[in-house]
Amino acid sequence: MDGTFPIGARAVSSDVTFLAIDPSTDAKIEPAFAVSSQDDIADACSLADAAFDTFRETDPEARAVFLETIADEIEAIHAPLVARAMQESGLPQPRLEGERGRTTGQLRLFAKHLRQGTWASVVIDHAQPDRKPAPRSDLRQRRIAVGPVAVFGASNFPLAFSVAGGDTASALAAGCPVVVKGHPAHPGTSVMVGKAIQAAVAKCGLPEGVFSLVQGPANELGAALVNDPRIKAVGFTGSRSGGLALVALAAARPEPIPVYAEMSSINPVILFPAALAARGEALGKAYVGSLTMGSGQFCTNPGIVVAVDGPDLDTFVEAAAAALGEAAPQVMLTPGIHASYEQGVAALAGHDSVETLARGIDAEGANRGRAALFSTTGKAFVADPALSHEVFGAASIIIRCADLAEVRRVLETIEGQLTITLQIDEGDHADAAALLPVLERKAGRILANGWPTGVEVAPAMVHGGPFPATSDPRTTSVGTAAIERFLRPVCYQDLPDALLPKAVKHGNPLGLPRTEG
Amino acid sequence: MDGTFPIGARAVSSDVTFLAIDPSTDAKIEPAFAVSSQDDIADACSLADAAFDTFRETDPEARAVFLETIADEIEAIHAPLVARAMQESGLPQPRLEGERGRTTGQLRLFAKHLRQGTWASVVIDHAQPDRKPAPRSDLRQRRIAVGPVAVFGASNFPLAFSVAGGDTASALAAGCPVVVKGHPAHPGTSVMVGKAIQAAVAKCGLPEGVFSLVQGPANELGAALVNDPRIKAVGFTGSRSGGLALVALAAARPEPIPVYAEMSSINPVILFPAALAARGEALGKAYVGSLTMGSGQFCTNPGIVVAVDGPDLDTFVEAAAAALGEAAPQVMLTPGIHASYEQGVAALAGHDSVETLARGIDAEGANRGRAALFSTTGKAFVADPALSHEVFGAASIIIRCADLAEVRRVLETIEGQLTITLQIDEGDHADAAALLPVLERKAGRILANGWPTGVEVAPAMVHGGPFPATSDPRTTSVGTAAIERFLRPVCYQDLPDALLPKAVKHGNPLGLPRTEG
Repeated sequence: MDGTFPIGARAVSSDVTFLAIDPSTDAKIEPAFAVSSQDDIADACSLADAAFDTFRETDPEARAVFLETIADEIEAIHAPLVARAMQESGLPQPRLEGERGRTTGQLRLFAKHLRQGTWASVVIDHAQPDRKPAPRSDLRQRRIAVGPVAVFGASNFPLAFSVAGGDTASALAAGCPVVVKGHPAHPGTSVMVGKAIQAAVAKCGLPEGVFSLVQGPANELGAALVNDPRIKAVGFTGSRSGGLALVALAAARPEPIPVYAEMSSINPVILFPAALAARGEALGKAYVGSLTMGSGQFCTNPGIVVAVDGPDLDTFVEAAAAALGEAAPQVMLTPGIHASYEQGVAALAGHDSVETLARGIDAEGANRGRAALFSTTGKAFVADPALSHEVFGAASIIIRCADLAEVRRVLETIEGQLTITLQIDEGDHADAAALLPVLERKAGRILANGWPTGVEVAPAMVHGGPFPATSDPRTTSVGTAAIERFLRPVCYQDLPDALLPKAVKHGNPLGLPRTEG
Repeated sequence: MDGTFPIGARAVSSDVTFLAIDPSTDAKIEPAFAVSSQDDIADACSLADAAFDTFRETDPEARAVFLETIADEIEAIHAPLVARAMQESGLPQPRLEGERGRTTGQLRLFAKHLRQGTWASVVIDHAQPDRKPAPRSDLRQRRIAVGPVAVFGASNFPLAFSVAGGDTASALAAGCPVVVKGHPAHPGTSVMVGKAIQAAVAKCGLPEGVFSLVQGPANELGAALVNDPRIKAVGFTGSRSGGLALVALAAARPEPIPVYAEMSSINPVILFPAALAARGEALGKAYVGSLTMGSGQFCTNPGIVVAVDGPDLDTFVEAAAAALGEAAPQVMLTPGIHASYEQGVAALAGHDSVETLARGIDAEGANRGRAALFSTTGKAFVADPALSHEVFGAASIIIRCADLAEVRRVLETIEGQLTITLQIDEGDHADAAALLPVLERKAGRILANGWPTGVEVAPAMVHGGPFPATSDPRTTSVGTAAIERFLRPVCYQDLPDALLPKAVKHGNPLGLPRTEG
């Protein structure tokens, strides 16, 4: 591996470099990676803009083949890619192998979606020349790519939400050139994937500006990217402060642009009485499994559990505390994330209204995330908004409520969420149904008798939700509907067939599904 | 007519009142209308929030009947409504009769769209319990209403873009309660329509909070409405400064919300050489017809014409100048709009690089809009962004370009537009095709051999476009796709059928179209 990054067809180097850190040891990892300059960002955006008109009008089949070629190129470097990602993220091999499969799987899913064609939303209103009092024109609507897109790699999915992750896959599928700002925690992984995409661009004969990667540890790079007038939308997964900063930058541009930021969620799990009575112990164990998986570094990690207090909840708590007490420490993604986690856990442990129920096994070594389980009352939770702030990692609070009315008040108090989970038996259906309208207002996904971690990449998935779970609840960042973030409608009125784009030509040469009236 | 306004089921009065002005005479019109207080706005939002969960889960058929009932109620007051709207807007009777038909027509179109069901975007991924390595859950996606919506009435369509206009119709269709801030130029028209909606709410047995109307001349009222935490989206049609102010307010809320503002457009018309040679004179006349219709007070008014200079363009200019010289003055909507128009025209007339080609007939009387036709060069237009600012009214600039390359530069210079129009003959197809990618980036609707005024309310229509034509180019404010602005996706994972909303129940009791996989 060299330390260059791909801008269009070039490999760019620099005298200014930075090194990745192995979070399991805090040691620096070779090689040094070139830091992108403001000129590199301008070059990437200029190439993206130059590529846009050609790329957006490629046939859907051509873009599908391109996405599949990217998947092939990533598969071809599977072993070294997973090895490098392990070093840079501290994540274990099976997890990264699964994530590699998810990454190539979602590229292929978007290829399938492109061929299916509903994404283009073609609607045709045929002319009615004899209509009274006035004739109707021929109107043809399709959706086109919005323009070059900036994507910010996420630290917690160095493959599936990073350089060739869901944002990039959906933007490329839409026909948008992409400039990725690689996450500085995994520059080697980013460069390997970036060069795989670069190779796919060349193999498919596409304009070089379809893809570039910029790198570096400074926030200013990302700001320059979002401020470039050629960028027309932004995809981001990360912290609330980071997401809100990008939203503010984008809104302050002379031409404001949409930011799709997936930011913050505590993913409430509600234990209903009958379910709790029937299987409190099993639920307690399963909950800790979901909580501690991957050191809790998921946006869908269950950060609060809400239930009516009583002996059944005690059973759940005992089982959860016992399981958590045996949870092995796991390396967290970065020293910064580990420090924030420790700080968040310490704040909860020191909170007057919060009881520490259990901590995971302590261990020597750098950046080990030690799980933490807390409890508080519904009244205390409602009274202090700080208790509803996300602590990124394997920390969670069990909220003991006086009754179901207090459960409802807790849910009414929380901000927007990615997910809300119900643990229910048949005897709980009436109570759950009564609460459902509150939950629908709060979350993008409502699930029963499962756990929020593990987000299926599928057409019906919604990985999104009301603010601050995301900056735009009208969309999803996982699943095929993610493509809609990067499309806008255009209507063609009375254009001669020779001038109509293929998607809306009279003969329908692309064979796209059409709604006609 | 009394001076009260409807908040839920009540008729609210106040000691603080304001009067409408007849723009044809500058005289005040009785009766006085109550000015809404901050408490009235809070009441309206509180009722809307209380109505939300019930209203959004009404069957699509129930909402369709509701929209049709609103249309019936408006038709029942046709004659007095049109009479009052004439007084308050200065618009002529045939225009307002047509607009009344458009208003009830679009309510009925949304009713039809609700019954058709694709708006709910139901996608079902069936469970795959035997999938390896992990089973797949049952995932069901539908779109639900975003919450109570604030709608700002527009001055230039006192019926079709006002209290029961496209924003209200699409928000109600989506299942969102609506609080309208009536435009202060036509309070009587607003109250009559508002009470018609109030009557329809009662007749359909819906919660009273489904609709309220607040009134008053101060901008603070609108700001209070947008800042109310129960409001979840905003629809606006009006000036760029007004729209941007609402966008800024909405972005600064603790929970930011989307604003759909349709703001500013100069709707370029491009005359291609063959078309100009074949029918320059006819085009010149037709252009002035589109320009002066309704005193030019349309968001799709053709504000610039772009063409290659030469004798054929001279023919067009002569015909246009002659037609415009005979254009009768028409009463403009408000004294403020008339004053802004005069100011905009004076600025163009005094501009060093602009030549005044013709003015319409002058006349005595208040607020008469006198048409104005200017010309400049492509070079001058590109050099001075001020020349591309919208002058709301019947003013337009013909831009003489040295060649088609300069036509392209002019188009590349302009900001986002609602429409771009091509006048083309077969000999122009190659030139037009080469320019099309630029136009698609700039406009929501591209039309050939017609005029941009006259926006069909139809499924394929796009009345939207890149900033600053709108604040959100991903949508349209006219046509059935406008409903999408007020919906967000929710995914239900493994919910028992008893808890699933009707839209995604296994038996499909609503009969909605589904994409299943």
